[in-house]
Amino acid sequence: MRIAVDVLGGDHAPYEILKGVGEALLGGAFMPSELLLVGPEEVITAQLTEMGCTEIPPIRHTEVFIAGHEKPVVGLRSKPDASISLCVQAVRGGEADGLIAFGNTGATVAAATMGLGMLPGIRRPGIAVTILGLGGRFVLLDAGANPTPKPEHLFQYSLMGAAYARDLLGHENPRIGLLNIGGEASKGSDVLKSCHSALGNSSLNFVGNVEGNHLFSGEAEVFVADGFVGNMVLKVVEGFAEYLVTAASRSESGDGVKSTLRHLLGAADFSEVGGATLLGVNGVVLIGHGRSHANAVLPALEAVRKDIEVGVNRHIIESLAAHQSEAPSVK
Amino acid sequence: MRIAVDVLGGDHAPYEILKGVGEALLGGAFMPSELLLVGPEEVITAQLTEMGCTEIPPIRHTEVFIAGHEKPVVGLRSKPDASISLCVQAVRGGEADGLIAFGNTGATVAAATMGLGMLPGIRRPGIAVTILGLGGRFVLLDAGANPTPKPEHLFQYSLMGAAYARDLLGHENPRIGLLNIGGEASKGSDVLKSCHSALGNSSLNFVGNVEGNHLFSGEAEVFVADGFVGNMVLKVVEGFAEYLVTAASRSESGDGVKSTLRHLLGAADFSEVGGATLLGVNGVVLIGHGRSHANAVLPALEAVRKDIEVGVNRHIIESLAAHQSEAPSVK
Repeated sequence: MRIAVDVLGGDHAPYEILKGVGEALLGGAFMPSELLLVGPEEVITAQLTEMGCTEIPPIRHTEVFIAGHEKPVVGLRSKPDASISLCVQAVRGGEADGLIAFGNTGATVAAATMGLGMLPGIRRPGIAVTILGLGGRFVLLDAGANPTPKPEHLFQYSLMGAAYARDLLGHENPRIGLLNIGGEASKGSDVLKSCHSALGNSSLNFVGNVEGNHLFSGEAEVFVADGFVGNMVLKVVEGFAEYLVTAASRSESGDGVKSTLRHLLGAADFSEVGGATLLGVNGVVLIGHGRSHANAVLPALEAVRKDIEVGVNRHIIESLAAHQSEAPSVK
Repeated sequence: MRIAVDVLGGDHAPYEILKGVGEALLGGAFMPSELLLVGPEEVITAQLTEMGCTEIPPIRHTEVFIAGHEKPVVGLRSKPDASISLCVQAVRGGEADGLIAFGNTGATVAAATMGLGMLPGIRRPGIAVTILGLGGRFVLLDAGANPTPKPEHLFQYSLMGAAYARDLLGHENPRIGLLNIGGEASKGSDVLKSCHSALGNSSLNFVGNVEGNHLFSGEAEVFVADGFVGNMVLKVVEGFAEYLVTAASRSESGDGVKSTLRHLLGAADFSEVGGATLLGVNGVVLIGHGRSHANAVLPALEAVRKDIEVGVNRHIIESLAAHQSEAPSVK
């Protein structure tokens, strides 16, 4: 098992990414041979050596990367040696079993989609995040890959999310909810109504529309939304959590409350859960947070490993075969 | 100044609504003559008398109401004496200066839109909520009146929200942000792009697209979104806050943390802020939370009063006149 690590992606790359890699190696969580570091060879070797690593993982050298503000497809075309592209190539070529990237999310999605292709029968990739609620961890997707999905895409997100919740979170028969602004089947856009109808007629474990205030209350293990709404929900929760921690630390109640909040807010903390999984592409792709510091790296690596080991893609394909006839037809 | 109170709307009506009304009267916050109670006369009189009120506010008797699950327009047509309709009539007829309703939001929006009409030049109503963040209270709209707005509607929400933030929250020159999934002008739907362009070319204090994780960080005082996204964001914050309080009370840290959280979570607590204001209709309409208990009533009343006293509608009309030529054209 080997994971390609994009050392150049993210706001604090490469220093924080390498710091996290070094800690993962020194702590014994990963063997050097389990990693493939994609980035500037000298910098990687120097920093890891200075940290005390005696054996350096294999390196795919590049100094090129897609910055956060770059347009993904333009960047990928003009920079064939961009670190994310080399990571994808490593997965496609079998040198790595999965990749972790903390950089430009759009570039990661585009590079993975073009470079790895889709799982057979899957139309569009979706980003799955896991969040902690009263019923334990649940899956929210799509968190931003596909802002204007067709009903069939949402249907496929449902089954991909269910496979993911089963494999990664251990929910035996995950309940699927469609994020909407009302519980009735007649609520929301035509796209949502069409998907609601197809899911209701399917053999998937669909519990219907779920409103945002029930996201955390344990009514489903999989919440499906378009990429605009899913991304917005995820970021609002993240921002709200940050606000609460900041506000708590400013208040008189001091460190006790702050640490309790931090603990509770594992919910929205990427550095605890490792990152978001890009589902639907023919490979294992974890999307770390652009703002990741070193402490996010080990959880990210462990998340990719788990993704790889549980074989969620195989289960997605199986589920697709079982439910394809129930999906809304493509126009 | 008189406020029409829909005594029959909401999950805990009429008992909790009347309990709150009684407390507002007994505490001296409102004079009986400042209220017009719309609901069952005997029940109102009995409960308020039992609470110790010696003078009962004027009552508009009805026993009919639109339940939470009813389709708004169908309900309004089949029940001409529904409490929300009588509240609207009281405002239209000048017997009341504003209304507060805790019931079916869709019915309130529809009754107000049809019964009061729109402010001159305003195309569609929008629901404005205020939320607490690091920069103080800010305005989010539309929180659900108009799930699929045109660019012009969003533009008008911007200027209505700015007038509201100035009048109600005291922000001198409120910054307006467009909730989006990226900061670049090219992000999001065609509707958002068109609105972004118009706002950027306008003389409104537009700060551009703002992502969900910055909703609470004080980057703007007005956040504009379509009614689907705005409603989802509001409810997710509400649900997340409830989750945190529940999780905190289950944890070992106990009551101290719980009370600190409750304090912080005024952010998402309707019972503290009173309700959401329906902007754009030709009248003052406050939408309380369906789950309101008695403690939500006084803040709601005070919120309507403030809405009435500051004259936000006049300022919306003035702002519209100043910015109408900058708006995206209607197709």
